[in-house]
This record gives sequence, structure tokens and C-alpha cells, in this order.
Amino acid sequence: MKIELICTGEEVLSGQIIDTNAAWFGDVLMNVGLELQRKTTVGDRMEDLVSVFQERSLHADVILVNGGLGPTSDDLSAAAAAKALNVELVEDSGWRAHLESWYSKRDRKMPVSNYKQCLLPEGAVLVDNPMGSAPGFRVKINNAWLFFTPGVPVELKPMVMDQFLPFITEEFGITDAIRLEKLVTIGHGESTLADELSAITIPEGITLGYRPSPPHVEIKIFARGNLAISAMPNYIKDVKKSLDTALVTDRFPSISEEVHTLMMESGKSLSIAESCTGGMLTSQLVDFPGSSTYLKQGLVTYSNTAKQKILGVKEDTLQNHGAVSLEAALEMAMGARSLLETDFALATTGIAGPDGGSDEKPVGLVAIALCDNNTSWVQTIKLSNRSRNLVRVMSCAVAHDMLRRRLIDEDPIVDYPFISRLDSQVIHVD
Amino acid sequence: MKIELICTGEEVLSGQIIDTNAAWFGDVLMNVGLELQRKTTVGDRMEDLVSVFQERSLHADVILVNGGLGPTSDDLSAAAAAKALNVELVEDSGWRAHLESWYSKRDRKMPVSNYKQCLLPEGAVLVDNPMGSAPGFRVKINNAWLFFTPGVPVELKPMVMDQFLPFITEEFGITDAIRLEKLVTIGHGESTLADELSAITIPEGITLGYRPSPPHVEIKIFARGNLAISAMPNYIKDVKKSLDTALVTDRFPSISEEVHTLMMESGKSLSIAESCTGGMLTSQLVDFPGSSTYLKQGLVTYSNTAKQKILGVKEDTLQNHGAVSLEAALEMAMGARSLLETDFALATTGIAGPDGGSDEKPVGLVAIALCDNNTSWVQTIKLSNRSRNLVRVMSCAVAHDMLRRRLIDEDPIVDYPFISRLDSQVIHVD
Repeated sequence: MKIELICTGEEVLSGQIIDTNAAWFGDVLMNVGLELQRKTTVGDRMEDLVSVFQERSLHADVILVNGGLGPTSDDLSAAAAAKALNVELVEDSGWRAHLESWYSKRDRKMPVSNYKQCLLPEGAVLVDNPMGSAPGFRVKINNAWLFFTPGVPVELKPMVMDQFLPFITEEFGITDAIRLEKLVTIGHGESTLADELSAITIPEGITLGYRPSPPHVEIKIFARGNLAISAMPNYIKDVKKSLDTALVTDRFPSISEEVHTLMMESGKSLSIAESCTGGMLTSQLVDFPGSSTYLKQGLVTYSNTAKQKILGVKEDTLQNHGAVSLEAALEMAMGARSLLETDFALATTGIAGPDGGSDEKPVGLVAIALCDNNTSWVQTIKLSNRSRNLVRVMSCAVAHDMLRRRLIDEDPIVDYPFISRLDSQVIHVD
Repeated sequence: MKIELICTGEEVLSGQIIDTNAAWFGDVLMNVGLELQRKTTVGDRMEDLVSVFQERSLHADVILVNGGLGPTSDDLSAAAAAKALNVELVEDSGWRAHLESWYSKRDRKMPVSNYKQCLLPEGAVLVDNPMGSAPGFRVKINNAWLFFTPGVPVELKPMVMDQFLPFITEEFGITDAIRLEKLVTIGHGESTLADELSAITIPEGITLGYRPSPPHVEIKIFARGNLAISAMPNYIKDVKKSLDTALVTDRFPSISEEVHTLMMESGKSLSIAESCTGGMLTSQLVDFPGSSTYLKQGLVTYSNTAKQKILGVKEDTLQNHGAVSLEAALEMAMGARSLLETDFALATTGIAGPDGGSDEKPVGLVAIALCDNNTSWVQTIKLSNRSRNLVRVMSCAVAHDMLRRRLIDEDPIVDYPFISRLDSQVIHVD
């Protein structure tokens, strides 16, 4: 079955609003093992609408059309469908009665503009809209069923779930079993990952996809058919083994959500001291509800005075080693930890750029420290040729990974191929 | 000139990522007075790509193709373009040399998969990519120039701005005089803004657009033709007057960049103490280079102990008024300011949700304080029916607006129609 989506509306086409309906619909289809073949977005011009309906209905079996069912003059979907079919618009008396009764029950007069919403192409099958005044409808043009839905998300969603999906299931029969797994990595490029994984034989029916989204590259493993699904666990085991330290979570979209969850499960507490990451390390955890149970404080100590006064970093350290150094990061982490006696502390200090670098300490140099009650781990990494934002994003990922690895009892400091480490130190205090 | 956009990639089509590139591109076109005619999204299947290139090139003059230039096997755009043109893929030796030198300079071996990125359809014109390993290219299919770009936003954007726009300007000639001004507002909904501004007569040739992007609604004022452009200054003056306190910047895309710039210009220093906003208030300023010159510290004091130990909030205050109160916010701001004796301090404390609310202190209740050396302003606002993220985003906007208004010598506490204020206080110390 070939499924397509047509989105209408100037504001979607011109980028004034981001089309979350399309993303939602694609996701819904994937969850039931169906694939969207094509998505077309057009504005509110009658000739564009008519031509896209006529043209796409030659190729698809079923098309969800979203938007253009409202009461105003730029809502043209029903009229364009009638034109594409070469039929008239006729009033649906049932829907008119339904709307009139809705208004009269509320002692309100029905606005004139709502009468337009009772007009459907002749022969169309009405699709109930329990959430609003615009009825959906479906018509067959050329080879395809076109299923018209309103653009308002709360009206679209029940229509798709309760009426569109049952309709296509019955009309076309859906049988294929599918499964999708995602692995989130850091510290590798898309191409080195692809090179590495190409050494593992992919079972029939499984496909691999890569999505770079800094600081991550997400690997998607998609299986179609029962044979492929049963081959998946072993294949994923091999992939994970090959990914090694690059794999940071197989259950969440980001390393920060993995760290948040591990921290919640651990019952331990955390302090954060940031310089170059400027609150990002903290904010990425605060994004998740419940983070206040373990995250006791996040201190952005930008100035040297703040590092000294709040965290107790020694003047000597700053003078002899500089604010961006193993020593300063270490004292920042230890200072933050001892302030509230939390179980863990993380600290970052570096040069995010674009200015402020020197030959000795170039832009992209970042020192990151983690400490618990008796051990400290600290490393300096160099993130060359990255934007200010990317230096911060990657530094946060490495800092979170140090904590993540500590929480699962792995060595917090490891190699990542795309991140060069200049120096590191582990200090035990008994 | 008919411009279309073709987006490729399963992850865009299936909704696993929201296509912000398309929205960005629509916006860029609008800024130079061009309209996008149609957008088509297809997955990574060879036959779908070939057919969409062949088919759309019959209708459009120029098509931006986005995605599918990566090094992996699901990146098929170049091969599909070659197939649509019925030519071979040939290696671009210049690009190969460029990539090899990039890797050798870094003492790394070029991954095998990168060699694929040097293959372009025979006869294609290479389009430089200064940000990554995938070259863009353009080819003429049927009536249209197809301009191929990578899906990674940092690679796409300079290519469009520095190469695509100049190319179409020269190729098709864009002569119409146009001008676009943007006004960024907070605290109003899109429809109340539209209602308000409808009272002002719009000069011929000027159009208004609204783009909600929390915490802002951006108003776009677009003039086409010299007459409209000359009418613009007076019209904008009237619009600004009508917007009143809602207008937060007419020169930057966000209130935080306005605050950053005002702080840089002022030569003053700032401390931030955050609870519910969890580092966001700080991070939104750290986003801009140079922020370390005025931002001395950003302290996320989540726990009561941290509020007491670091900021000196009194135990009495927390017990009698709670951590979310005018009094606590005030002591947080004053504590943060006096730590490093900065000129200003901002503090937020509230309940971001989804849990943690009570009848007396519901989710969405936030106290925000600003102080300088002799005055403090503090208010509690209620952000009802907003997500955790939206409560944080709106709170940051209000906090930044308090500082912005102080920096331009306006009253820091003002009314916004969509944000209810429960209480406020101004304290002078001579």
C-alpha cells in the first residue's frame, strides 16, 4: 500500500510554523509498521491544491490531506477536492443539524462562516470530528482514497487514530511485522561508525540508518518481517560490542536522559560547577521532571573571583596553572561537592570561543572533572574547529558520559576517536 | 520564478526528526521576497528519489534538494541525480584531494566511506561545503536547476546564504525592491496581537506575518516596492506604539540577545541565581560570545540547603514563606549580588511541574527578582496550563525583560496580557 501525505497552508509551506502534524503522522504510521512514501506541502492556492490532488492520486493508494477545512476564505480543501473530481459542493444536512444543535444547546447563534463547513464534494463520505466544527471526509480520486482532516492537532489526532487507521487496515489489510531499535552514540563520526559496522553481516530484512544530531550520532536498526525480527537480538549484540565506548544509551534519545535516569535510580546526589559550558550541563538535566531530587546545585562560576569565593579554588592554582587546567577543574569539582556534601560533582572549565584562545590554550580546550567521596577523575580534551555552541555541547556530553560510566562502574575516562585528549589524572583519597 | 524544495531522508519523512531545515529555508526565501511553491519529502529509496527529481523538474525553475549527501549507504541523492539524468557518477578529483588533505593534516586516515562523497553526477557543478565533507552540487534536469545540499543544518545554511541565493539572483534576476523588518514580542498571543494591529491602516504593498516561537511572537513586516518601503518607517512607528510593553527587541531574534547586547554596552556586571529555571537563564546569555565580560556567575540553587549555604537565604524565610515566594526570590537575588558585588542580580524560584504543585502554590507559580545597588523589584507570576519547558522558557523571558527594562531606565515590572501577576514589590535602600 502506498501512503502519501499532503499538507496544505501558506504558514506551513513558508516555515512560519513547523509542521508537527506531519512528524506525528509519520511516527504513527511507523508504529503500526507502515511507511509514508511521500509528503507534499502546498500553499492555499486553488490551482496548486487541485493539481496536487489530481497528480498524487495517480501514484498513491491512500492520501491523508491535512488542513484547509476551516471556516475562512483561505480554507479551500473541500472546494479543491470537488474541482479535482469535477463535482459540485453539496450541503451535508446531518452535519448542519449537528452544528446547529451544538450552538443552540449553548444558546448561541451559529456564525455564518460555519455553514461553509457543511459543504462537502458530492459523493464524499463524511468523517466525524468529535473535537471541532470541521467535518473530515474521504473521496476517491483516480486510484487513491483521499482522507481529508483538519489542521488543528487535537482534531486531527483522534480522526487518524479512530477512523483513518481502522479504514486503511480494513481497506488494504496490514500484515507486515516490523521493529525499530535505536542506539545513541557519542565521540564518533557518522562515517567511522558506518565503516566499523560494515564489518558485521546484516541479516536479511534488517536495515541500518544513521542520524547525526550533535553531540550524538543515532543508529537506527529497522527490521521488517518475523525472520528479521528474530535475528535482531543477536545482531544488536554484535553491533553493541563493536560500538564499545561510543554507545551511551539504547533506551533514551540522549545521554542526558540516560544520566538523569541512572541518577534517579541510584538515589545519589550531584553538584555541578561550570565555566565554559555556562549552565548547559545543569540545564540538560533540569529538562527532566524529578531532577531536583538528585541535583542539589549547579554553579556557573565564570569569573576567577567566583571560582575562588564560591568553590574555594586556590589563587595559586589559578596563577600557576590557569583557570583552564586539570588542577582548576579538579578544585572546582571538589569545591562544589564539599559545599553540600553531595555524592558526586562534575566540573567544566574551558575556552568555548570564538575568542579568548592562545597558542598554549587554544579555543576548544576544555578540562572536565568528576569526583565522588574518595576518587577524582579529570581530563583535558581538545575540540578543534568546532563552533562555540558545539564546543559546549560536546563538553557536556563528555562530562555526562564520565558520570554515566561512573554510575555503571566503568572507568570514567575513555577514548573517543573524534575527541583528542591531552592529559588526564585519577586521584584516590583513602 | 517557481521555487520548490525537496527534502530527503526516512527520518524526516517518518517524523523521527522535525524538518527545521524546511522551515528555515522558507523563512530565508521570504526574507528576500521569494515564495516557495511546493515542498516534497521523500525517503531514502532510489526509485522515489529518481521519480521526484524527474517529475518536479518538469514544473519548477529551481529546486533546492536537501539531504542524502552523507557517506553512508542510505545517502543516495548523488546517485539518484545521476540516474535521473541518465549519466554516470564520476569522481571529483579536487574534492578528493581536499578531503585527503583535511584528514592528513589531522594525522588521520580518511575513512573509506568518505570516498563515496567525491562522486558527483557527470557534468554537475560542485558547490563548496566549507563546513563538512559532503560537497553540494547543481545539475539541470528538464526545466529546472536542482541544487543539492547536505541535511546537516550548519552545512546547509552557509551554502544557501553564500551560494544558492547569489546563484538564483544572478540566474533569474531578482529586481523587486523589498524590505523586511521584524519585531519580537513577549506576553501576547498571536491572535490578540493581530486584533490589536488590525486597527492600524496598512499601507499598500506592506504585509504582516506572525510567527509564534515561545517565549516570543515575532511580527514580520514585509514591504514590496519602493512606495511601500518609503511608507514603512511611519507604519512601524505606529505598530511599535500599539505594541507598547509587548515589544522587546526590533534588532535581534530574541530577548536574550537584546539583554546580552545591552549588558555589553552598559559595562555593568551581573549575577544570576536560579531555581526552577535551572540554568536556562544563565545559558541563554552564555550562548553569546563575550558574555563572560559581564556575567560573573550563575548559581542554580535547587535545594533549600544550597539557597541558604551559598546565597544566604534565611531559614526563617524558607519556613514562613516557602522557597517559592517574593521573599525567597528577593533574598536569592540579594545574596547572589553581594557574593561578588555585581551591579545587578536576577533570581528565579518557582514550580515548573509537572509535579510539586499544591492548592496554595500551583504548578506554574514563579517568583522573579531583580536588584541593583539600591533597589529591588520582585514579582510572582502564574503560568497556567503550560508544560514544564514552557514555564521555564516564559519565566526566563520575564526575568530578562525585567533586566532589559532596567537597563533602558523603564519600570522593570509591567503587565503582559497573557501572563497573570499575583503580587509584586519594590524596595528602595538609600
